[in-house]
Amino acid sequence: MSIADRTTQTTWNGSLAKGSGKLSKSSSTALDGLSLTWASRTEAPGGKTSPEELLAAAHSSCFSMALSLKLGEHKLEAERLEVTATVSLSDVNALPTIDRSALTVRGKVPGASEQQFATIVHEAAQLCPVSRLFAGANISVDAALLQS
Amino acid sequence: MSIADRTTQTTWNGSLAKGSGKLSKSSSTALDGLSLTWASRTEAPGGKTSPEELLAAAHSSCFSMALSLKLGEHKLEAERLEVTATVSLSDVNALPTIDRSALTVRGKVPGASEQQFATIVHEAAQLCPVSRLFAGANISVDAALLQS
Repeated sequence: MSIADRTTQTTWNGSLAKGSGKLSKSSSTALDGLSLTWASRTEAPGGKTSPEELLAAAHSSCFSMALSLKLGEHKLEAERLEVTATVSLSDVNALPTIDRSALTVRGKVPGASEQQFATIVHEAAQLCPVSRLFAGANISVDAALLQS
Repeated sequence: MSIADRTTQTTWNGSLAKGSGKLSKSSSTALDGLSLTWASRTEAPGGKTSPEELLAAAHSSCFSMALSLKLGEHKLEAERLEVTATVSLSDVNALPTIDRSALTVRGKVPGASEQQFATIVHEAAQLCPVSRLFAGANISVDAALLQS
């Protein structure tokens, strides 16, 4: 049973090296107008997004939600979570491959101990739908509490 | 060997149901300031993005690039490619799971036949790093040439 379906379109003109793409028709309209090129994907971003940056946004936001859910199941609530994802495009056997997503999780969670937070982060990692989608990649999670 | 590393941070405040998240520190800055909630992820988007929409943007943009590369290998160049991805969050055995990405590919490619385009789209699907990352999900590709 589908909970949600979300769409985005890319319109691409020209070759890979010299062409460019633009996002449109995103379900929320929030991504419309963002542009991409191969150079901005693999060299300096220069203000343009890329598949890897969009994947990092998806992973960090999904993990935040999974963690806030799991904290709630433990009767805890985050005053603040900072979840950073870095997604890597790598050369694997001469094939460009998205092989890593490195997560850094910092939480200001009143009443939580470091040990309890580590346990709940682990539960969130098991649940997070994007972590499970990326199961073929190497996913690392570095978690710690922020000082209150 | 890493070709590119791209980062985005989500800052989340509060519970899953009542809290909200905001994107920041994206490598290009292009995604900074976008906001998300659980309600906008699973009910009406209301102008807010979501992990699934971001994944759809990543898949459609990555596929566009893979296809423009493969067209070039066949000495073809797209005047215009429209690649739409719809990513689904579904209830699978009571677990929210990203189980599908449906791609629709339309191309205005001078000199290409429908059969040749279908073959090249298939090659792009084998190459596309996001398609390979999503290998655990059901990926469909509906491709056709646009009339010139």
